[in-house]
Parts: sequence; C-alpha cells; structure tokens
Amino acid sequence: MPIDPVDLTAALVRCPSITPEEGGALVHLEKVLTDGGFTCTRVDRGGVSNLFARWGRQGANRSFGFNGHTDVVPLGDEAAWTMPPFGAEIKDGYLYGRGATDMKSGVAAFAAAAIDFVQDTPPDGAIILAVTGDEEGDATDGTTALLDWMAANNENMSVCLVGEPTCPDVMGEAMKIGRRGSMAAFFTVTGVQGHAAYPHRAKNPMPAIARLMDALSSRVLDEGTEHFDPSSLQVLTIDTGNPATNVIPSQTRATVNIRFNDTHTSAALTTWMQEEADKVAAAFDVKVEMRVRVSGESFVTPPGELSDLVGAAVEAETGVEPALSTSGGTSDARFVKDHCPVVEFGLTGKTMHQVDERVKVDEVHQLKAIYTRILRDYFA
Amino acid sequence: MPIDPVDLTAALVRCPSITPEEGGALVHLEKVLTDGGFTCTRVDRGGVSNLFARWGRQGANRSFGFNGHTDVVPLGDEAAWTMPPFGAEIKDGYLYGRGATDMKSGVAAFAAAAIDFVQDTPPDGAIILAVTGDEEGDATDGTTALLDWMAANNENMSVCLVGEPTCPDVMGEAMKIGRRGSMAAFFTVTGVQGHAAYPHRAKNPMPAIARLMDALSSRVLDEGTEHFDPSSLQVLTIDTGNPATNVIPSQTRATVNIRFNDTHTSAALTTWMQEEADKVAAAFDVKVEMRVRVSGESFVTPPGELSDLVGAAVEAETGVEPALSTSGGTSDARFVKDHCPVVEFGLTGKTMHQVDERVKVDEVHQLKAIYTRILRDYFA
Repeated sequence: MPIDPVDLTAALVRCPSITPEEGGALVHLEKVLTDGGFTCTRVDRGGVSNLFARWGRQGANRSFGFNGHTDVVPLGDEAAWTMPPFGAEIKDGYLYGRGATDMKSGVAAFAAAAIDFVQDTPPDGAIILAVTGDEEGDATDGTTALLDWMAANNENMSVCLVGEPTCPDVMGEAMKIGRRGSMAAFFTVTGVQGHAAYPHRAKNPMPAIARLMDALSSRVLDEGTEHFDPSSLQVLTIDTGNPATNVIPSQTRATVNIRFNDTHTSAALTTWMQEEADKVAAAFDVKVEMRVRVSGESFVTPPGELSDLVGAAVEAETGVEPALSTSGGTSDARFVKDHCPVVEFGLTGKTMHQVDERVKVDEVHQLKAIYTRILRDYFA
Repeated sequence: MPIDPVDLTAALVRCPSITPEEGGALVHLEKVLTDGGFTCTRVDRGGVSNLFARWGRQGANRSFGFNGHTDVVPLGDEAAWTMPPFGAEIKDGYLYGRGATDMKSGVAAFAAAAIDFVQDTPPDGAIILAVTGDEEGDATDGTTALLDWMAANNENMSVCLVGEPTCPDVMGEAMKIGRRGSMAAFFTVTGVQGHAAYPHRAKNPMPAIARLMDALSSRVLDEGTEHFDPSSLQVLTIDTGNPATNVIPSQTRATVNIRFNDTHTSAALTTWMQEEADKVAAAFDVKVEMRVRVSGESFVTPPGELSDLVGAAVEAETGVEPALSTSGGTSDARFVKDHCPVVEFGLTGKTMHQVDERVKVDEVHQLKAIYTRILRDYFA
C-alpha cells in the first residue's frame, strides 16, 4: 500500500520538534523507513539528532540523495495561532501546523516517494535520505554531522535534492541551483565619553559609525551575475543606548548583513570591511572593532544534468517550467554542495516561519509525484 | 554682626531642595533677607517656588541684580557619598553636600554681601535678588517666572550678576559674558521591514540615518567668533533595537545636540537640518521626521562696563584676572539677557552634579568679598 505523504506530514507535524528537540519526528521517520526496507542509522552529535537512511548497496555507482530537516522554528506568538500548532488539523484543503511547509511535508513527500519507488521498481543503485534535526538552529551538528559521518563510513550520494520550499507563489515555478553567501559583521566603535558642551574633552564614536555604515551601505557590490541577483549589504541595527541629551557616549554598535553572489567571497568582503573600519578609526581617532560570522559562501551547481532532470519532472507534473533561482536565504545545500551536485525543489513557502503555517494538501501529493518522477527518470 | 556666608551655605545645604522641591531653602533665605531689610515676595508658578527680594526704592535709576538658584540635582548614587548629602559637614576645609558649589554657596555669598553692604553703606539705588527653585529642571517656571513678574510689577535691574560657578580650576580665572545656544534634534527614520535576503521588498531606514548623521556631523559650523568657541554638533545616540541578523528594521532613531555661537540661530540650524533630512528622505525613499527642542539661543554681553566692574573686583580679591568666557552649558543668564546686561561669576565648580559635591570654605568667604567689592564699586 502506497504511503500517503499527507498522513506522514501530519504524523511529523504532531511531533513538537522545535530545534534542537527531536520531538519524536526522526524516531517516527526511522520506523517508517525501516519498514520500507531502508537501512537506518541515527547520526547524533552535539545534542542534535540526525537520521541517515539508505536503500540499496553501499558504494553504488548511482546513488540519489534527498536532504531535509524535521526541526522547526519556535511558534512565535502562540496566542495568535487559530489552529493548534502541533495539531496537524486539516481545514479547507490546508494542513496546519508548525513545520507544515518548512519542511515536514517535504521530508514526508520524499520519504513516501522513495519507499514506494523502491517497492514498485527496485532501481539499480542506491537511494539515500539524509535528514537533520538542526537546520533552523546553528546547523553545526546537522547536515554537516551527516556528511562527516558519511565520509567516514564510505557512504556516497552521486547527486542530491534538498526538499526545502522553493516556490514563491505558484507550485513548480522555481527550483534553486545555488545560494548566495551570507555573512554578518558586528562593529563596536569606542571613543571617550564626555559632556556635550565640552566635545574637545571627549571622542564621539557616533560620527565614525555613521560614516562607516554610510560607506559600507553605499558600495554597489555588483550588478548580479549569470545565475545570481545582485549582492546586497544591509545595515540591520545601530545601537547606542544613550538616553541623555547632554552626554557624548563612549561606545556604539552596529550589525551588517551581506548576501553575496559568486563575485565575492566572505574573506574578500571581510578584508574590505576591515579596511573601511580602519579608515574610519584613523579619521576619527576612535577604536573600531569588527567581528565576522560567515553562514555560508555563495555556490552554484551550474545548469546541467541534475537541473534538467528536476526541471523536466516538475514541468511534467505541474505544467510549469521552474526558473533556476539562486535567491533567498541559506539552506543546507551550502554543505551538500561540497559533497556532490545539489539542487533544491519544494513547495510554495509563503507561510513558513509564520503563525498559522500551513500547506495545501494537494501540493503535498503533487510533490510526492514530482519526487517519484525524478527517481524514475534518474534510474531509467 | 556680618552674615557668615559659610553658615548660610550650610543652612541652605541642609534643606533637601531637589528640583522641584523648595525644601525650606527659599523660606530660610526669605527670613534672612527680610531680617536684613529686604522686601521679599514669593513668586511661585507651576508648582515651583521662587523668591524676589529688593532693598531700596522701586524704580531706582541704579539697581544691581543678583540671580541664582537654590534647587539642586538629585543625589546620583547615594551609597557612594562619603558624607551626608544634606549634612553640610565641614572636613579638611571643605563643606560637603548637594548644592555646596551649584549653587547654594553662590546664593549665600551674594545674600550675605548684599545684606551687609546695605547695612554698612546704604547705597543710592536698589539691590535686587532674584532666586529661583527651578534652574536644574525645565526652568520654565523659574527665572522666567521672576522676570515675568518683575515686568508686570515694574521691578527693574540695571545690570545682573548670575552667581553660578564659572571657574574651571582656579578661583577667579574665568567669568562668563555669554553662553552658546543649545538645542537638541530628535530624528525618526521609517522605512519598511523585511527579510535581509529580500532587500528589494523592504526599505531599510539604516543607510538613511547613517548618511544623515554623517552629513550633520561633517559640517564645520564655524571656526569660532570673537567671544565664542567654535559651534559643535554632536550625534549623541542612534538606536534601532533590532536583535535579528536576518531582519531589516522598519524604524530607527537618532538624537543630535548642538552648542552654537552667535554665528547661528536655532531657527537657521533647524532649517538646515530639515533640508538635510529631506535630502536623505528623497535619496532613500524613507520617511524622516525631526523634532527640535531649543534650550536657549546664543548670547553675549559685549565686554564693557559690567565685565570691567566684575573683572576688576575679582582681580583685586584673588590676584587673578578672569578670562571672559562663553564656554560651557546653559544657565539662567539666557533668560536674564533679555532684561538687562548680564555676566556670571562664581566659584570653581569641579564637583558640581557629582557625588561628594563640596566647596572650599575659604572660597565662599572670598566670593562674598568679591560680591561686596562689586556692589561698592558699582554704587561708588
């Protein structure tokens, strides 16, 4: 009997797996996959649960991988939910709950597709599911832990599909062949406090931070590239916390976020920002400290065999030809890309991370059909 | 028997007259002045107490005025005081307590000088003391109330001396013949919130505020004038309060303080800042709101008869020729200057507004002697 991906989504949504809680989601998934003939290994690291599952021979020449996560973001304003956030209730064609789109439905769809596929038409090769419980958190012990474990245990994916939501509005309209890089820089400018009436006895850090933030946000990083939107630097916050109207503050802080395409590397951007910080420090005789956190470098899997395979399956099932996108935030594809060619395709994600997150029941069935077709075409 | 200005200072310090509390200070002063032959009127307005005192004929041709305040700033970190803040205890030649320098000693010195002077050598003219209980607060019902009442009651000062501390380090080294103006501007920049990965769907207010603060603080307002230091614009705080590293904030705020000399008026500075704000609003397509609070315009009593009189008395009593300064914050001289020529001279003010505020006992006696000599020379 085929696996109903909506039932499986509902079962997973009922598990309160807010990062880093496993919440029963991976336990349930492991049982379903084991029953479906997959060899499962729990790859837990640093208090995070992950699941590796393989059907077929280890080291097979052709091995199709799926990657996804069962952890979910917090509920936000719980009182604002009109449906139980872990209830998985269905109303007017939508299944409601935290993780309904991001991305328990995606995991359910590829698990259901894989189990049914190996049952119906056992392929000459392997199918691997690498499912993490740490995508919404720091992601240091999630997909990375799975890939580390796979390398150590001679497990290999020839290609990989990440099942994150990729369609802005209409099912099928976009897949992702890469992602921009993402990094944050945290600046602290320190001067000398003083009375506003005696500025010569103080060193005001405020003009320095204003100049620095203006310089950073004024640079046009690029105009976009073949596969990427233009890079973007956003100043996200400047905070001083000085309530007095007659006191020059001693210190102020700012945070900058950069989403960058393949024109840049985080290292080059760090060097540039450090130079700008140094310039301002010298110009205003203040101390400027910068700390950088890199979430991921930009990457792209150039259009080719894998994107053609996925694109054709999407178009066959939805009638829509998916655009090859690299927009949006980061995903675990940034880790997978070091292992094998990777693309992403999944549902529309309009309500992800929001109150009353929900998924169209029809689209979950459609997604399973797409994933099934991809497997069939891949092993054909 | 002459009035001891240190005893009178001590009596006033024992009155806990933190703005807007009268605390018994003006009541005590009124009694002392009445006993000394002064006609006293309490001029209370808006919950604030003020005292008007005159010796001599109303409408006299020559009328010498003193202005000061008996209210004090709060104690700050009370536990850090090593002496009782309202104890007026004397130790190692210093009298301790809140208001010891700012400026109960100044009020005591001019009251003692005036009472003894009219007793010893009754002048051909009048002496007026205008003492407020609202200088450290909003100052809306303090010296302004006294001046309004005087205008309504045909009371007039020919010249006025404000007894605020004016000497940075050494007794006698500086008097003030004017003050810079002071104003604050409060900016709110509003854009549209959004995800840092999709900046085209948001309008980030941060580049706008950085550009605006850089523009405002980069302008050299002037190089100083004959009697004034250069004007100074200080950005005091920028606050956004956005803790997320992936969210573009919708709004941010900044505060600017300007101390300006006679090159400028608050109106012209307001116009300039509004133009800069409008430029930035247009350039970044965000809303920039500005609210301005003017504490006082710049003013100067040009060097002449009054400053010569005060300067000569200071030099005779201290051996130090006072500089004619216009530095520092605001004082009630900004109100008095619309009534008559005004200068300021008082003690060293190093511990004003601080914990363990204290005044050198010797300097209080010296200050009384200076004020006495000023009266003698004025009426000579």
